[in-house]
Amino acid sequence: MKHFSILVAFICSISLAQAQTEDSLAIRKIFDEALENGHSYKNLKSLCKDVGARLSGSPEAAKAVVWAKELLESYNFDTVWLQPVKVPHWVRGDKEEAKLNGVPMSIKTLGGSVFSNGLITANVVEIQSFEELEELGREQIEGKFVFYNRAFDRKLISTGQAYSGCVGQRWMGASKASEYGAIGVFVRSLTHHRDDNAHTGSMGYEEGIKKIPAVALGIKDSEILSIMLKEKPASKASMNINPQTLPDKDSYNVIAEIKGKIEPDKVITFGGHLDSWDVGEGAHDDGAGVAHSIEALRLLKKIGYEPQYTLRCVLFMNEENGNNGGKTYAAVAKEKGEFHVAALESDAGGFVPRGFTLDGTKEQVELMQSWEPLLRPYKLHIFDKGWGGVDIGPLKNQNTPLIGLRPDDQRYFDHHHSDTDVFENVHRRELELGCASFAAMIYLVDKYGLGADRGITN
Amino acid sequence: MKHFSILVAFICSISLAQAQTEDSLAIRKIFDEALENGHSYKNLKSLCKDVGARLSGSPEAAKAVVWAKELLESYNFDTVWLQPVKVPHWVRGDKEEAKLNGVPMSIKTLGGSVFSNGLITANVVEIQSFEELEELGREQIEGKFVFYNRAFDRKLISTGQAYSGCVGQRWMGASKASEYGAIGVFVRSLTHHRDDNAHTGSMGYEEGIKKIPAVALGIKDSEILSIMLKEKPASKASMNINPQTLPDKDSYNVIAEIKGKIEPDKVITFGGHLDSWDVGEGAHDDGAGVAHSIEALRLLKKIGYEPQYTLRCVLFMNEENGNNGGKTYAAVAKEKGEFHVAALESDAGGFVPRGFTLDGTKEQVELMQSWEPLLRPYKLHIFDKGWGGVDIGPLKNQNTPLIGLRPDDQRYFDHHHSDTDVFENVHRRELELGCASFAAMIYLVDKYGLGADRGITN
Repeated sequence: MKHFSILVAFICSISLAQAQTEDSLAIRKIFDEALENGHSYKNLKSLCKDVGARLSGSPEAAKAVVWAKELLESYNFDTVWLQPVKVPHWVRGDKEEAKLNGVPMSIKTLGGSVFSNGLITANVVEIQSFEELEELGREQIEGKFVFYNRAFDRKLISTGQAYSGCVGQRWMGASKASEYGAIGVFVRSLTHHRDDNAHTGSMGYEEGIKKIPAVALGIKDSEILSIMLKEKPASKASMNINPQTLPDKDSYNVIAEIKGKIEPDKVITFGGHLDSWDVGEGAHDDGAGVAHSIEALRLLKKIGYEPQYTLRCVLFMNEENGNNGGKTYAAVAKEKGEFHVAALESDAGGFVPRGFTLDGTKEQVELMQSWEPLLRPYKLHIFDKGWGGVDIGPLKNQNTPLIGLRPDDQRYFDHHHSDTDVFENVHRRELELGCASFAAMIYLVDKYGLGADRGITN
Repeated sequence: MKHFSILVAFICSISLAQAQTEDSLAIRKIFDEALENGHSYKNLKSLCKDVGARLSGSPEAAKAVVWAKELLESYNFDTVWLQPVKVPHWVRGDKEEAKLNGVPMSIKTLGGSVFSNGLITANVVEIQSFEELEELGREQIEGKFVFYNRAFDRKLISTGQAYSGCVGQRWMGASKASEYGAIGVFVRSLTHHRDDNAHTGSMGYEEGIKKIPAVALGIKDSEILSIMLKEKPASKASMNINPQTLPDKDSYNVIAEIKGKIEPDKVITFGGHLDSWDVGEGAHDDGAGVAHSIEALRLLKKIGYEPQYTLRCVLFMNEENGNNGGKTYAAVAKEKGEFHVAALESDAGGFVPRGFTLDGTKEQVELMQSWEPLLRPYKLHIFDKGWGGVDIGPLKNQNTPLIGLRPDDQRYFDHHHSDTDVFENVHRRELELGCASFAAMIYLVDKYGLGADRGITN
């Protein structure tokens, strides 16, 4: 019996070693192809330069759909199709001006904002938090601009965490200020980077509250405005913006598949979002995720990998201002009774990949962590419980484990939603390493599942 | 007895937990200060913009010594002093021209090269390795230029490893080609980055071999030259450079200390090199290491840490073309019978820190690895056996464990030894995170030693 056990242990250790060797060889092939013959950099260049910024509903977003479909078709995957998605159609307009005591300030209208109805001029009240609104009260706010100036917490190592600590003032700032009679809001741009570029992003209005115009203010001008308000509290700011919300438009998620060889009805979805803001070129946000996803499917095909499950690359529409692509995708999957083994997203830029976070059970996180030895040679070290992504988020309701690619985040918010999110600020090798890392994780999820074999159903 | 053991284990675990809490609080303080009130970015800016490129022997290198001494004195450390170092004095000259069939090519004379003695023109033989020289033989090489065109291996994840695979052609290329009668060499720039900037660096001549001129060629021009040689093998290149080697000069390592409170005679040395090449601003190489080192000492003083051993920040002179600063430092340490607990170096750029490598015993590497839980929250993951640094290298003979800071290396060789190694290409937070990481490692080495307590002596 003892000898038998040793024999079994020996055989098991051989098969484990063989599996590890097979996996490490496959992952090596993925990285070699991405780094030596990668398509991601030229694909991203084309998306940025031939299509450009592509806000949902815009002609450029429509062009991006065609661009993506044609590119995916050129790779001869098993299927490529468009999934209809209804999207909002907000346009910035041709006026975007603000001044402080007559001197121009750098602004960007926030996505979703109403127009100012011509030039509006008023005093300004600076605050750091919503609590201060209440302390100041209507008498000190009514008829004025509110200036939200809470800065990123520099002490936080994760810039994403710093962003989370401030994004509320962008999203809800206008409604909160409107409650106290403000006529408009300036929001400090959500970045560490001290430059003159204002960073846009989405905002919303609470039901039943008067809608007031909202703009992001560049960091340098935020600092100047803050100093001026201390020195000359009677300073006057002005704002003139004319954005419009037009009727919703028809658009699409763009999807490509390699069919599973063993269980084709079970799906691994991975993707990024095809839309971007209407400034810069949407290079890191999320051209990189688009390039990562397309390249991941190409890499897996190129190395001749035959997946167990169906591998589905989804380029989602409308992450930036509505997430209708993600919502539609999850709704359709539910309607069709599709089983998702996992969903993966790349929407954190094209910087050097550091690892992955998984939004799922403890067991799923531990399973992912068991792959660390295979990925450590590629300097992937983060395998933590954490955020998946906005687009794949709605699949959470179907018990799908969600995995987010985690590139280094120190530079991400320098460019986020601003004029500098352009192709030139993406580094070729960093992008290529991201593609290979993403493909390697998809490979491992396909090989070992993440609980699909444990009978979790929708 | 059993109860006593449990009690001892309990007490030990309490002290361990207390020590860990104390350490994690100290490290948190280090990072907070670096990120919120850091001096490194402005110090680096001053070094790059007020001093500039600073090759050993140049007036700028002399200025850098004064700059560093004054800056260190401003922090009121226990002592600041200059350690004399004799350095080579090579100057680039005012001619640096090359052409291919009459069309200009982007070159940089390699440091240490002799002059071309006016315009020289000849056919070109392209090779990838020294073995090819032998295969071609004198008859195909004599009277011609040799063009070393071995490219970085893109498949290697570590760009440093790719550099190692090619640096031989820069260092020894001229001597090897001269053996076969070549009149000069062009060396493909040592970088992945496809641009027009040639990247300089040091080269040497073997004893007794005729010295021929050597230049680095930009990547794009290397590719063009390679194509032209295939299409028109009779193509002619020309070269005109007039560098000079002048008599050695007097210079200095710049040193500052905080005295150890328990064993002041034992020393932890850490530093970067103050000299740079004479192009760009030496921002990543090694202005970042200088900024890291000065800031590390400032951070440890600022948080009120009282070191066990003497903490010594050394800004070495002449790493780039001779390492006389490092050699002198080790020789003086040996002469004085100084005991080094450890030596640490930052000479791999100001990019986001990924961890550390240690050149020492297995036990020392394991001890460093035991600190991983304290450093992982700061996204430091690499704690491997590996390279220390050039400047601290000579201390290896005194059994000193050598530790190298490992920033991310994907972008490093884009700028290395070229016109683009300027302040603008250093990212503030990445630099600050490097400072704090370096300081945290110095703190841990000071707290727990690396074998100093095991009686290793010089």
